[in-house]
Amino acid sequence: MMNFDIQPLSAALDVQIQAKIDHKTKPLGALGTLESLAMQIARVQQSMTPRLIAPTIALFAGDHGIAESGLVNPFPQVVTQQMVLNFCSGGAAINVFAKQNKIDLKIIDAGVNCEFDPKLEITNYKIAKGTANYLYEPAMSSLQCLEAIKCGGELIDHNISEACNVIGFGEMGIGNTSSSALLMSVLCGIPIENCVGNGTGVNPEQYRIKLQTLKDVLAFHHTIKADDVYGALSAFGGFEIVQMCGAMLRAAEKRMLILVDGFISSVALLCASKINANVIEYAIFCHHSSEKGHEFLLNYLNVSPLVNLGMRLGEGSGIAVVYPLIQAACSFFNDMASFESAEVSGQL
Amino acid sequence: MMNFDIQPLSAALDVQIQAKIDHKTKPLGALGTLESLAMQIARVQQSMTPRLIAPTIALFAGDHGIAESGLVNPFPQVVTQQMVLNFCSGGAAINVFAKQNKIDLKIIDAGVNCEFDPKLEITNYKIAKGTANYLYEPAMSSLQCLEAIKCGGELIDHNISEACNVIGFGEMGIGNTSSSALLMSVLCGIPIENCVGNGTGVNPEQYRIKLQTLKDVLAFHHTIKADDVYGALSAFGGFEIVQMCGAMLRAAEKRMLILVDGFISSVALLCASKINANVIEYAIFCHHSSEKGHEFLLNYLNVSPLVNLGMRLGEGSGIAVVYPLIQAACSFFNDMASFESAEVSGQL
Repeated sequence: MMNFDIQPLSAALDVQIQAKIDHKTKPLGALGTLESLAMQIARVQQSMTPRLIAPTIALFAGDHGIAESGLVNPFPQVVTQQMVLNFCSGGAAINVFAKQNKIDLKIIDAGVNCEFDPKLEITNYKIAKGTANYLYEPAMSSLQCLEAIKCGGELIDHNISEACNVIGFGEMGIGNTSSSALLMSVLCGIPIENCVGNGTGVNPEQYRIKLQTLKDVLAFHHTIKADDVYGALSAFGGFEIVQMCGAMLRAAEKRMLILVDGFISSVALLCASKINANVIEYAIFCHHSSEKGHEFLLNYLNVSPLVNLGMRLGEGSGIAVVYPLIQAACSFFNDMASFESAEVSGQL
Repeated sequence: MMNFDIQPLSAALDVQIQAKIDHKTKPLGALGTLESLAMQIARVQQSMTPRLIAPTIALFAGDHGIAESGLVNPFPQVVTQQMVLNFCSGGAAINVFAKQNKIDLKIIDAGVNCEFDPKLEITNYKIAKGTANYLYEPAMSSLQCLEAIKCGGELIDHNISEACNVIGFGEMGIGNTSSSALLMSVLCGIPIENCVGNGTGVNPEQYRIKLQTLKDVLAFHHTIKADDVYGALSAFGGFEIVQMCGAMLRAAEKRMLILVDGFISSVALLCASKINANVIEYAIFCHHSSEKGHEFLLNYLNVSPLVNLGMRLGEGSGIAVVYPLIQAACSFFNDMASFESAEVSGQL
């Protein structure tokens, strides 16, 4: 379908990078995860002095046909557009955290079910006013799916600062834990029970209905195979997930660091990895969401997020909160003294 | 011995604090640990608009008589003073992380085995040039122990910004994982095997010697009882641990938030809690160290640190790295919009 030219990371500097880490004034390995993170950042940038420049979070919003049924979502569909307005006026969690940590926030309308005032700071890549209801038909056409992938790439090329070399991916879309669970189940071959969680907070009876609904959806779309990522994305949506997927692939082509948020952001990365597996080497998994499916997905991808703060909010909020840890990896690598330069004795 | 007037936290604002958290534009509980952290910060400050002001890390350095034997430490004792000089010239991990996150760093000579140039920015509370070797005698006298507790309090009163309401406690002292393991074993009644870890990086044979040495020390000091915290501190030291303990108690008296680093910092908090149990309510455990004893100690104290990054460096480095997460708890509580103010619909 579409080709992405994502270079696998070169191991050319690995020995030099590890030596630089090991000569810092600290016991070997004493900075734990920050050391492996520094290694990854230096490898992505192929630099002995990596820098994080113009950090940005792209926050994609989209609506889901299924949400109008109320079968999978405790919040009404209108919350998607209300939250986008909240993002614009600076009142959401992602605004507060992005501001605190000086991260640029870009809000993208991938397919919200309304017309926004064009004066608002929203990047318009609206494919349609929400996806179709996958209970009865594919969420989107194949053409819409390809268009959404392309929009994600265009966002990276035209709407993100040229200087930016580290970009996070967040989302907002009432109903999108359900799309994510369906995508994950089909693409990973993991039973839907392990992919469906409480989302924004269903109670046990609502959970039962959500799970049964998604089982019905899988039965209806039984022809979608695990190796057909575009088919799965078209069937289950949503526009925000497909655009994230396209944007992640383009970001990796441009050798940017990709910051993955929680469950839905990780599903977008899963989809991207099914299109080009090299994308994973560019990804930093920021936090372990408490949404049930995330644990299984992380195991499937064989990755460990930086922290587990019991968050399950989306919006890229986990990325924004955790970003200073990524900066810390970069800072120690660049700025700590070595045993030699500080004249500190080594081990006996 | 010494009295500390630490107020238990009032529950007067709890309902109001929780309501403020629950009305933010996010699903109930979706910010996980950040929500319980916001609750704790608001309770400590008894404020609906808590602020973190003039954050400071106090880094206590001290030497240990046992370290001259080389039985428990892979690095030579001289590394303590070399690292203090490294702190002064800005090359250590703690410098880099404190600078990144705008945390004031205060370096305290609690008992390093050398004379420092008085022109250096080191706060001098030196009790002696290192503790005595607890293989043969108590690490310090009872009077030195009380003096060190008092120095910790004086540091808070005279050497930390008046405005400061959040203070972290780090340490440097070759051999101090051993003191910490001994203190923990005696005060918690936990077998020494579960308290002794690899420290700065002993190999299996060195570990065997370290463990056997500490067993011999416990046998020699068999008269120290679990309820005699001053006796245990005198027996096992070190000066940096006792001063941390005193400073933590004074900080809690002054209703400051106490940021606990890894294993050794947690042992100082353990000792403080044996003097006045209320101190724990003021403490935020920043990270889960990979030093073996920390896991057992955290379970004993029934606390969960914010993150586990596999770090085991000390210096307060875990506090400095994690500090932005604490700021995030404060920011969302103060700055996020409510459902009402943002006109976002609630659950169906």
